[in-house]
Amino acid sequence: MTSFPSAAMASPRSVLARDKLMRTAERLYAEHGFASVSVTKIGEAAGQRNKSAVQYHFNNRDELIIAILERHMARIEKHRVAMVEALGAVGEVPLEERIRCHIQPNIEHHIELGTPSWYGRFLAQVIVEPNLREYAIQAHGKLPSVRRLDELGRVQWRDDDRALIAQHHEMIRQLTVHMCAEVEYDLAHGRIDPAAAEESWRRLGENLIQAICGLSVALLGNR
Amino acid sequence: MTSFPSAAMASPRSVLARDKLMRTAERLYAEHGFASVSVTKIGEAAGQRNKSAVQYHFNNRDELIIAILERHMARIEKHRVAMVEALGAVGEVPLEERIRCHIQPNIEHHIELGTPSWYGRFLAQVIVEPNLREYAIQAHGKLPSVRRLDELGRVQWRDDDRALIAQHHEMIRQLTVHMCAEVEYDLAHGRIDPAAAEESWRRLGENLIQAICGLSVALLGNR
Repeated sequence: MTSFPSAAMASPRSVLARDKLMRTAERLYAEHGFASVSVTKIGEAAGQRNKSAVQYHFNNRDELIIAILERHMARIEKHRVAMVEALGAVGEVPLEERIRCHIQPNIEHHIELGTPSWYGRFLAQVIVEPNLREYAIQAHGKLPSVRRLDELGRVQWRDDDRALIAQHHEMIRQLTVHMCAEVEYDLAHGRIDPAAAEESWRRLGENLIQAICGLSVALLGNR
Repeated sequence: MTSFPSAAMASPRSVLARDKLMRTAERLYAEHGFASVSVTKIGEAAGQRNKSAVQYHFNNRDELIIAILERHMARIEKHRVAMVEALGAVGEVPLEERIRCHIQPNIEHHIELGTPSWYGRFLAQVIVEPNLREYAIQAHGKLPSVRRLDELGRVQWRDDDRALIAQHHEMIRQLTVHMCAEVEYDLAHGRIDPAAAEESWRRLGENLIQAICGLSVALLGNR
């Protein structure tokens, strides 16, 4: 599969080049869309003289995108692990607390990224791209914090609810990803004042938690 | 902007060629993603000998995508207009009825399309693509049935709710588009039996209406 050596990854210079390529790719993808940005263009915009810089450092476009995704996921996971640990023992964790653990880590991450950011719009494209979505869903489902939240929720489920539970999970995922992208779009296009960015992210977080609690009770009852 | 004559659109042969290109593009985009499908590939797969068939019939990729989108929107709009007319006079239209008018026409359209279909996955990509999303949002907001539903809802709003109302609309839109794409993915990948397709679409419709009613009441109160 690999036609370039990956030993290059070790050197500090290579780490910097990879970082520059990832940041540049994320920005260009967010602003112009996956379809309008070639790996050659990313290399050029990242100031790489080697025309095959993306191939050299990431093998191909999909692996570049996955590397960007995993770096964000790792940072979000730190927030979520801390929140889930604070929930304490198995059993009666209220619905709202579990939902907050799904949503809030994304909000904290967006606030940390500052303005402008590109991750929200990048991620929205990843989860609708046929080649990448299955990977993204599975990687998210395997996160220790997400598995723990599933266990805490499962206490309250019946087995014949499986399809409904899956659809409910999907609704939470779609709402979270795409509503974060919306706020990022609004920031990028001047529809939200950058000075109000943190407040807008926090308000989105609270609205999402409230909305998803309502959605969940309507769909599943108070489980 | 146009470098090809559009007079060609009038002939029956040209209408057929356009139709073939639109169907082929929708399928290839749904299966492989916007980024992996060139207009040249679409022309070839549609059996066009002219290498610039897409340019000839649609000027460019974006106009091809918009033509596909508008054809579906027109069919969905017919369903929604009929439902909205049945609501009757201004005033007290219950929340659930208004939400049903937003959701159900999409469900009916998906059922009419049959299995396999590609529109759900195609649309999910359109509304996250930076070049196309503003167009798609505005075109949807201008539909007579959607404007009428907005008027019916507005009776119950206060002016200072504007930002929250906009976010609420966005949640409905994101959930509807992306959850329809999910069911289509599941059908395309054998996770739903094609014989159960209609039932799955109808169940999604009812789940969406129930979920969005819960979400709406939680976010806006019973307005």
